[in-house]
Amino acid sequence: MKISIMTLFPSMFEGFINTSIISRAKANNIVEIECIDIREFALDRFKHVDDTPYGGGAGMILKCQPVIDCLNSIRTENSHVILMAPVGKIFKQKMAHEFKKYDHLIIICGHYEGIDARVYDYVDELVSIGDYVLTGGELAAMVVADATIRLLKGSIDENSALDESFENGLLEYPQYTKPSVYDGKKVPEVLLSGHHKNIEQYRLKMSLKTTLLNRPDLLEKITLDDRSQKLLVEIEEELKNDCK
Amino acid sequence: MKISIMTLFPSMFEGFINTSIISRAKANNIVEIECIDIREFALDRFKHVDDTPYGGGAGMILKCQPVIDCLNSIRTENSHVILMAPVGKIFKQKMAHEFKKYDHLIIICGHYEGIDARVYDYVDELVSIGDYVLTGGELAAMVVADATIRLLKGSIDENSALDESFENGLLEYPQYTKPSVYDGKKVPEVLLSGHHKNIEQYRLKMSLKTTLLNRPDLLEKITLDDRSQKLLVEIEEELKNDCK
Repeated sequence: MKISIMTLFPSMFEGFINTSIISRAKANNIVEIECIDIREFALDRFKHVDDTPYGGGAGMILKCQPVIDCLNSIRTENSHVILMAPVGKIFKQKMAHEFKKYDHLIIICGHYEGIDARVYDYVDELVSIGDYVLTGGELAAMVVADATIRLLKGSIDENSALDESFENGLLEYPQYTKPSVYDGKKVPEVLLSGHHKNIEQYRLKMSLKTTLLNRPDLLEKITLDDRSQKLLVEIEEELKNDCK
Repeated sequence: MKISIMTLFPSMFEGFINTSIISRAKANNIVEIECIDIREFALDRFKHVDDTPYGGGAGMILKCQPVIDCLNSIRTENSHVILMAPVGKIFKQKMAHEFKKYDHLIIICGHYEGIDARVYDYVDELVSIGDYVLTGGELAAMVVADATIRLLKGSIDENSALDESFENGLLEYPQYTKPSVYDGKKVPEVLLSGHHKNIEQYRLKMSLKTTLLNRPDLLEKITLDDRSQKLLVEIEEELKNDCK
């Protein structure tokens, strides 16, 4: 897979591209990442890429021409083009699974004060990483690239990915490592028991409980099997008794 | 304001800290940012910070001791401590407005394979930037720091911030800049009219329309004034006619 990132700030990506998992994925030819500087496509000698908004208002708007010329220079018929923008569709784990299938993903980083809306006509989707405003699309692009690259075969130990939050629609169960007692706080006994079936049952229950307490909205979006439904009733009973 | 980021990968933050807005905010003493390497607090000569999970499973879990020792070395009574974790509360623009009020925000980056859940007892909140899995908490920490810093007085032109997505519960209206015709695509005429009242009305309407089309869930969360409600009815009528 190849990921091309179009940005006004290519140097912002250096730290990201050199992190362990990403640089290993690059070294193993799992992914190729390139950053293209949109400013290189400015036509005037001062390399201007933005201008004032029509209709007035604060801030500068990224112009169509440098963005589209840059895009045309790298786009092929196999490219999927996304523009990071607060008005876009919210990025979710499922979308990362879609993105990993493309041979070539082009991610355009928006400008912090806005981008000419006519650019929307040239991209496949507008994507937002959440309901907050960032100084630019660069961090958002890294988030999308990171979530996508780690799903590529060979990027990470595949067993690690199976139990993670969001993969089965639930939040992850709590994890513990040595020592078994830290600052008076004990690791749950079942995890020290070596009894695999009980451990698996405990983890599913804690996964359901964490989701119920922290993100009940996620439970509304999935269909639980009989076992999980029974565990959920048990959890709700226990929580009621805790309150008494 | 001071932001302390606890991470195993301090070098990942260099690009972020040196971007224009963040570095300007630092230079103007609006914010002080420091990255602290959790690994410096490992006790053994090999600087191990993680270990295998109790109960079995893939991956390595970040241990309590280096994290808590690191936290204790920087925490004061004015510190607000957040841990970036997929099980956390979803970060929103409103949360950025809360965070900007703290004198000292400590952001702990989780480990990509997990962190000992007993660490949760030492932090004020668990925060997630969205429903996707990242290789680490570093990008999530940058997102939170970025969204927070740009709200600090003096960081950006304050007028830029008023009309942005999420600030009034709506997505932003489309923006345009020169030329008025690009590749056959015209800027909406009203924006070239110079008629401020009409422009303002058009922008509110487009903001409502974009929200209705892209993120109807946001409309459910806000109370619209009479004018906006009337415009929304108008938009719905127009959309119905477009489909005929």
